[in-house]
This record gives sequence, C-alpha cells and structure tokens, in this order.
Amino acid sequence: MNLELEKILKKAKNASREMMLVSTDKKNEALINISEALNENVEYILQENQKDMENAEINHMSEAMKDRLLLTKERIQAIANDVLKLVDLNDPIGEIIRDIYRPNGLHIQQVRVPIGVFGIIYESRPNVTVDIACLCLKSSNVCVLKGGKEAIYSNKALASIINQAIANVLPENVVNLIENNDRSIVTELIQANDYIDVAVPRGGAGLIQHVVKNATVPVIETGAGNCHLYIDKDADMKKAIDISVNAKIQRPSVCNAIETILVHKDIADKYLVELIKVFQKVEIRGDENVQKIISCKPATNEDYATEYDDYIVAIKIVNSVDEAIEHIYQYSTKHSEAIVTENQSIADYFLSALDSSCVYHNASTRFSDGGEFGFGAELGISTQKLHARGPLGLREMTSFQYRIKGNGQIRK
Amino acid sequence: MNLELEKILKKAKNASREMMLVSTDKKNEALINISEALNENVEYILQENQKDMENAEINHMSEAMKDRLLLTKERIQAIANDVLKLVDLNDPIGEIIRDIYRPNGLHIQQVRVPIGVFGIIYESRPNVTVDIACLCLKSSNVCVLKGGKEAIYSNKALASIINQAIANVLPENVVNLIENNDRSIVTELIQANDYIDVAVPRGGAGLIQHVVKNATVPVIETGAGNCHLYIDKDADMKKAIDISVNAKIQRPSVCNAIETILVHKDIADKYLVELIKVFQKVEIRGDENVQKIISCKPATNEDYATEYDDYIVAIKIVNSVDEAIEHIYQYSTKHSEAIVTENQSIADYFLSALDSSCVYHNASTRFSDGGEFGFGAELGISTQKLHARGPLGLREMTSFQYRIKGNGQIRK
Repeated sequence: MNLELEKILKKAKNASREMMLVSTDKKNEALINISEALNENVEYILQENQKDMENAEINHMSEAMKDRLLLTKERIQAIANDVLKLVDLNDPIGEIIRDIYRPNGLHIQQVRVPIGVFGIIYESRPNVTVDIACLCLKSSNVCVLKGGKEAIYSNKALASIINQAIANVLPENVVNLIENNDRSIVTELIQANDYIDVAVPRGGAGLIQHVVKNATVPVIETGAGNCHLYIDKDADMKKAIDISVNAKIQRPSVCNAIETILVHKDIADKYLVELIKVFQKVEIRGDENVQKIISCKPATNEDYATEYDDYIVAIKIVNSVDEAIEHIYQYSTKHSEAIVTENQSIADYFLSALDSSCVYHNASTRFSDGGEFGFGAELGISTQKLHARGPLGLREMTSFQYRIKGNGQIRK
Repeated sequence: MNLELEKILKKAKNASREMMLVSTDKKNEALINISEALNENVEYILQENQKDMENAEINHMSEAMKDRLLLTKERIQAIANDVLKLVDLNDPIGEIIRDIYRPNGLHIQQVRVPIGVFGIIYESRPNVTVDIACLCLKSSNVCVLKGGKEAIYSNKALASIINQAIANVLPENVVNLIENNDRSIVTELIQANDYIDVAVPRGGAGLIQHVVKNATVPVIETGAGNCHLYIDKDADMKKAIDISVNAKIQRPSVCNAIETILVHKDIADKYLVELIKVFQKVEIRGDENVQKIISCKPATNEDYATEYDDYIVAIKIVNSVDEAIEHIYQYSTKHSEAIVTENQSIADYFLSALDSSCVYHNASTRFSDGGEFGFGAELGISTQKLHARGPLGLREMTSFQYRIKGNGQIRK
C-alpha cells in the first residue's frame, strides 16, 4: 500500500476508537464551529475554487461539470447552513434498539454504535466534502475522503477549514482528505480491509461500478434511479396527471425522478391526451400502442433501461398490473416506483410484489429523500438490500453492538 | 458464466419473487413436511452418506473431518427435530418496523421483506444443507447451496428429499443445490450480482477469506472467534473462576469460547493460583509476569492472534483496564469479549470502549448464540459491522422496504 495512504488510514482508525466515546455536546459544538468557519472563510474558499475553475477551463470541462464544481458565496452559505441543521437532529449513537431479558437473568441490550471509518469516493462537487464530513461526524464516524482531482484545491481548502474548526473539540484525524490523485489510490482505499469499515461511492454509474467490482471492504451503493410510474385503470385522472408532472418534470436531473410511465390500456387514451397538454417540454418515446394514440418517437428496450435524468420519458401501454410489475422488475434499479389507483387491493398488491427500496401509492416518487422522510439529512438513497435501503439518514450510518449484563451466569 | 449455473440462478431469482408473497402457513407446512420426510428417509440418507464416507476413506480424510461428514440415524433425527423448531418462531416478513406520519399526510411504513437469493458456500458438514435451506425458507429467502465435494452424495440426497417434501406447497426452485464441483463455480457464484443478493461463507478461515476477497456481491462474514476474558482487580473471585472455566473449557472447539485471558496485576497472584486448580486439562501459555507466578509455557504475539479452538489458553497480566482494552482491540476478531468486575463504572467503560459484536459484564462469552439470545435459530455469528452483528436470527436474514401511502401528494 502507498505509505502516505497507510499513514492516513492508521490515524483514521485510531480516531474512530476515540470517536466512540465523544459526547453529543462535543459533536454539536464541532458542527457549529464548522458552520461559522465556512462563513468566515468565504473569500479563501472562493479563491481556491477559482484555481479549480481555471484548470477546468484549460481542460475544456463541459458547462454542466463546471457548474457542479463552481462555488459561490451563496452556495457556501447554503452549505454552512446545512451543517447547522445537523445540530438539531437526534444523536443516534447510544440508542437502545432492543432490551432482551433472558430467563437466566441476563440482560441483553442492543445498542447503536458508530460503524467506524467511512471511505468516500466522489467526483467533482466540492460540497460533498462538507456534507459527508459533517454527517460522519454527527454519527460518530470517521471519514476518509477521496474527491475528484478536478476539485482538489476546493477540497483542500474545505478540509483544512473543517479541521481547524474542530481542532480543540474533537479527537485528531476525524476528517481526512486524500490529496494524492494517482488512479491506484482509489483501489487501495477500497481494498484496505484493516482500516476501512465501509466504502461509499458518490457519483456516476462508472464510479459506482468500479467500486462495487473492486472493493473488498463492504460497500453501500447509492444513487442509480431508473424509477417508474404506473397509471392503473382505476386511477383518478387528476392525481395521475399531477403526479406524472411532479415525478418527471419538477426536477428531472435527480435520481428520484421517473424515467418510464406504464399505463393501463383501458385508461391510456384519456390519460395520454391529458398528459401531452402538460408534457410540452418533454420528449415522449412511446411503444407501438402509444404511437397510435399520440404523436411521439418510438421507445426501444434501451430506452426502458435508461436513466435519462432529463426532459425525456418512455411510455408503454400494459394490459394488467402484472405486466406493469413485470416490466418494472426487469428494468428498475430498485430505487422508487409508484402506482396511481383508487383500487386499494391493486395498490396493496403492487406495493408488496415489487422489491424496490421505496414503493408509492398515489404519491410522487420525488419524496424518496431523507428530508422528506423526516430523517433531516441523508448520505444518499441506497438501492441495495443489505444494511440499509432508501434514504440513508444518520441512523442508517450506524451499526449496533450487544451489551450483555450478568451476575456470574455461565452456560449449561 | 457456466450455463448450467446460470440456469439455476435464473430459476432461483424467479423463485425469490414468488416467495415474497407466500404466507406464513404455507412456509410452516413446508417445514413440517421436510421434517417428516427426513425421518421417513433415514435409510436412503444413510446409504448416500455411506458413499461419501467410502470416498473419505479412499482420500485418507482425517478422523475429525470424517466425523463432520458422518450422518447417523440419531443425527438425522436431530436435524429433523431442529427443522420443526423453526415452525414455532415468529415470521419476520411483513413486520412493520416503523410507522412515519408526515405533515403532508404521507404515511410511510418501513416493512420487513426478504433479502432474496442467498448464495451459501460451505464445507463438509451435510447438516448445513438442511439448516440453511430451512432458515432461508422460513425467512422467505431462496437459497443456492454449494457444499463441499466430499459431501456431494449426502447433499444431493438431502436436497432431493427437501424438494420433494415442499413440491406441492411452495414455488419451485426455492432450494437449489449446485452439483458441479469445478473450483471456478464458487467464484462465478459470488460474482453473480444479477442473481445473488448475498453470499454467506460457512466454514474455515480459508474459505471465508476466499469469499471476502473475490465476491462482488455483498457478503455476510461469520464465525471467526478470537474471544477475550478480562479479570479486573475488582473481580469477584468465584465469578472469575466460574466464567473462566465455562468460557474456556465447556466446549473449546466453538467460536464463542475464549482464547486469551487478561488479568489485572493486583489480582493476578490470587486468580492464577485458583485457576490452575481447575485448568488441569488446559495448556497455559503465559507472558513473563504470569511465568513468575505459575509454571507454564511462554506466550508469544502469535499466541495472542491465534484462535486455538482447543484446550490451550494464553494469559497476560495487564496494569489497567485500558491496557486490556488495547490488547483486545489489537488482537480480537470482534466476536465476543467479557469483563469480570464488581466495579460498575469500569464495566460500563469496558463495554462501551470495545467495538466487538458482543461484550459481556460478569457473564460467559459462551452465550453468544442465537438460541441463548432468544432468537431460536441462527445462521451464524456475524463479526462484521454492516447489516447485522452477533447472532444472525431470522430477523437478521431480512431486508426492508418503505411503502408510502398518499392521496395525490406531490413534492413542492
């Protein structure tokens, strides 16, 4: 292993032990300090961000990428404000999940504890540096951050501001930034089983797949969202249209926006005619039957498998709820799916027959979000089945331990 | 991928969808049928097991290995009896973990659901075939079993009996046995992300490490148990001796038995003199200070890192509870550790400063067991931090899903 990396990881591991015993008050004090320090250092952050922006220019980065990289005074203030919101959230650490009293007198407590060291691999958005560091901090976890090389000046500035702000409050090395940009560093990080308890890739499908395929440490996958909306024959038309608009157009670029609409044949005519009135900005790609009703481009199987994150939607007419479920099962990334229907038993069937993280009846998939669930903040939306699914709040960033209290019990 | 394997995996994946909707009654009926069928087919099972035993003889298998492979009438009846015990356990599937009511009227239910398809890789013990198949079945999961080639006749017999017994009760392909013994099959199985939701290695350290290193699917690690007992200066001597004997000698071969005893210097003389009276069967390896008090072999750092699973114990004298914690943190496999003390604050500190799955105050580590925790049955003892730790009962073999019920809500 790269010696510099190993040094960072060893210190991080030691810090994770110290964090196990840090009080809620100390953690909140650290968060308040970070928020203040960000506001006080706006100029310095902007100056360092400018260096990244200049390199982006030289490297002909796309406008969309540059926008992700850019920090402004307003953006920094918004980041600082989000940090403050974490102060008010309940500390999950120490929570008693379960009390078990055994006939032999043993008292078994299942207690929430930190996971330990998070290895976070992300791309160009520098706000991730602050978001993740603070989520980890509040959940008593230590983070090792590996951001994109295109944001290195911004990330170094943010990490150093955070570390100065918490220096007298928390143990050392709670927030660690890897500054080495060798490609091999990511692989070494996600194979460092002695030091890293969990790896979380934050970014595009390429990054996520690289981490999933090469990690030997446990991984939490987030983000991929090929989401579906099914309009049942017993749908209320107003709800169907309102939810279609909200789930597709309110913010098309996010993972909880829908990509494909499935509509029951008995209601397709009426629904599609209404839909095109409000989907003027949206490029519709329909199957053969949709094309008979409205004028649109044809939808292919590739369309059904695509997360557009854009003003494009695939639409398919189905003969039954089962055909809708079948389609979703085949193409979904298991993020979020919704049904619109007034038929309660069809709704119940749809919700229990799908194995996606979040399944909705008569509501928009756009609610798949830590804030909207009442979790306050989130690490991302998990689409995997182990450990945690759906919005990952502070609670989902923890592990547990059994503490067993006896008075001399031995096993018979 | 091996075509035969892919065929099995595809069918298993389909079966996992059907299992999502199977009732508790059906699952219990299947378990009762399996138990009866095992009892009715004792002769056939023994005859097939005999073939494995003959091959074991030809291949000069060790006596310990042969004993693990051997089935007897009594052993088969015990296996059949354990299957029946699962009938009485609560069905975890469908349990509402959390109800969240949001100000906008959304009702969010966190509901327990199956994980899906378990890939289980194990070694020579054929009883694992039945245990795992039935644990998966009761938790609505599908299993793909890859047992050791030395038990292939026994495993084929057991799997075919199970499948006949459940044929008219459950969907097809809920219990799947891979009969191909090519070495590459295990690797293909643990990299089959499209079909396998979780891989569980059951066996020695070599097998576990192979799976952890090569799997691209999520893994649940179980079993490694380098467990510790710390005798504090404020220990009650009777509890200290009783727990030492129970945790080391009652059944030395299991993972929740202790391997190293740490004793505070102020109580070491008295404790060690008492201990040798009851540890006559045990080979003691002590550090320099232990050797000054009792006659014993020297303990090396290698000893501290070894899971003996035998009548051998390492003993070290420490100056403080912190030194004990430091030693445990360095050498433990994070399975189970115990402290004996009458000092409540020292006990609380010990329990919260260690990050092992199970930590005990004044009780034997031998209680780290699904049955002893009241879980009824277990898949193993998890030593990892994600998903589940400690004894893995039916509940720990599940995932969850958010089901969100609205009346037309859209996000603002």
